[in-house]
Amino acid sequence: MLAALRKHLPSENFVYLGDTARLPYGTKSPATVSRYASAAASTLVDRGVKALVIACNTASAFALHALQQQFAPLPVFGVVEPGAEAAALAAGQIADGSGVLVLATESTISGGAYQRALMKMLKRQPVQGRACPLWVTLAEQGPLDVQFTQTVLAYSLRGFTTSGPSTVLLGCTHFPVFQPLLQSLFQELVVSGERDSAVSIVDSADTTARSVAAQLRQQELLLNLKSSGEVEYLATDGAPRFKSVGYHFLGAVIEAVELVDL
Amino acid sequence: MLAALRKHLPSENFVYLGDTARLPYGTKSPATVSRYASAAASTLVDRGVKALVIACNTASAFALHALQQQFAPLPVFGVVEPGAEAAALAAGQIADGSGVLVLATESTISGGAYQRALMKMLKRQPVQGRACPLWVTLAEQGPLDVQFTQTVLAYSLRGFTTSGPSTVLLGCTHFPVFQPLLQSLFQELVVSGERDSAVSIVDSADTTARSVAAQLRQQELLLNLKSSGEVEYLATDGAPRFKSVGYHFLGAVIEAVELVDL
Repeated sequence: MLAALRKHLPSENFVYLGDTARLPYGTKSPATVSRYASAAASTLVDRGVKALVIACNTASAFALHALQQQFAPLPVFGVVEPGAEAAALAAGQIADGSGVLVLATESTISGGAYQRALMKMLKRQPVQGRACPLWVTLAEQGPLDVQFTQTVLAYSLRGFTTSGPSTVLLGCTHFPVFQPLLQSLFQELVVSGERDSAVSIVDSADTTARSVAAQLRQQELLLNLKSSGEVEYLATDGAPRFKSVGYHFLGAVIEAVELVDL
Repeated sequence: MLAALRKHLPSENFVYLGDTARLPYGTKSPATVSRYASAAASTLVDRGVKALVIACNTASAFALHALQQQFAPLPVFGVVEPGAEAAALAAGQIADGSGVLVLATESTISGGAYQRALMKMLKRQPVQGRACPLWVTLAEQGPLDVQFTQTVLAYSLRGFTTSGPSTVLLGCTHFPVFQPLLQSLFQELVVSGERDSAVSIVDSADTTARSVAAQLRQQELLLNLKSSGEVEYLATDGAPRFKSVGYHFLGAVIEAVELVDL
């Protein structure tokens, strides 16, 4: 998400907070996720940010409206609506009526926010959800054996590999690291004749970043600088692990991490 | 661990606290694990317990001594020493000089408490550690596809399957659910001739429970009742998930869970 935001808002400064002491959010209850998200948001608001992006699908699904009320008139953006819109658009373009498969954490899937948003947008196409509990842990391990990773991906997708929706929405900010492997997994099935239709994989990060940029521009909140923006990194635990995991996700070296207590 | 404790102390009452809001501990720093362990222990001490068992290897490795000091003279037991003792005993009996392989979470392995304890006990045999980050998530999923689970287990054990220590210590309270599959994985390798020696798999739960029972008896802290003990379950989040995961681990139905805030 940060990489996508920097691409669309290259002059802006960012404060990134990773709640490493209490992750993952994807197995926790709505009440606990909301409480943690509120504490994290307060820390960022105290740093004087002009807008908040909830760069976690589980927290967006459970806490967006509460955070918008708590911090109004500060703009607070989630990832569920933009992600669902992008998937609905892709499913509309494919137009084979196969609908959308949402891949996300246990809590996001059982909460159903993506499924509800998509059902409103798609009307007559089916929407299915699949929790992929191993993927966050797998993504955090850094570069992995391709064959093993494909085995885990295919296991989580059982029932949806040879048939099923032609649009797949990655509903967790950790999952885009698997996009190339997922694409080749489905591509191989099409080539071998085991699957009829190609699959379009949609990631909410890019559409969210686009939507954030457009809304900040509209509200005249953008910096009009030619300089390149800075990123400040905060974490609630384990700076060394944060740096190594962050390197894997951002492809950029994280020089300094400030530990904060929520 | 609770199942082993109840086996060795059938008349005793237990209060079980699962810190479900902040698990897993296995990726967190020593300071954060110690802080969480201290808060969890305080909650249990406030309930009037006569002894504490830290039924988490990561918390035992980082917080045992601090909790013993904080709550003295209350007896506080960890799982690292009894687990290491059981593994050292097994390695001594096998006596092929191949040493011990410790399987645990990222933090337990990088903290090195098991390896240090074993090196003191074994002296001339090698001690190796391997972090198995996917296993906790996998264990919490409940009954899984045998073939897929064996693929994940074998991947984590790469380099140790066809050769390596004949004694394997399960240094995480979640890992005993994999014991039958691990045993058959190694057994198949021996039968197919890919591995020379059989493997002894050691779980710290049973030796810890034995040691707790012996020490409570010595300190005359045991109830002398013929009745069967009760268990009270506390959790910090998500009672429904706690019940379903607990059923998988304990093989017993958890009737009621009290939510507590640490």
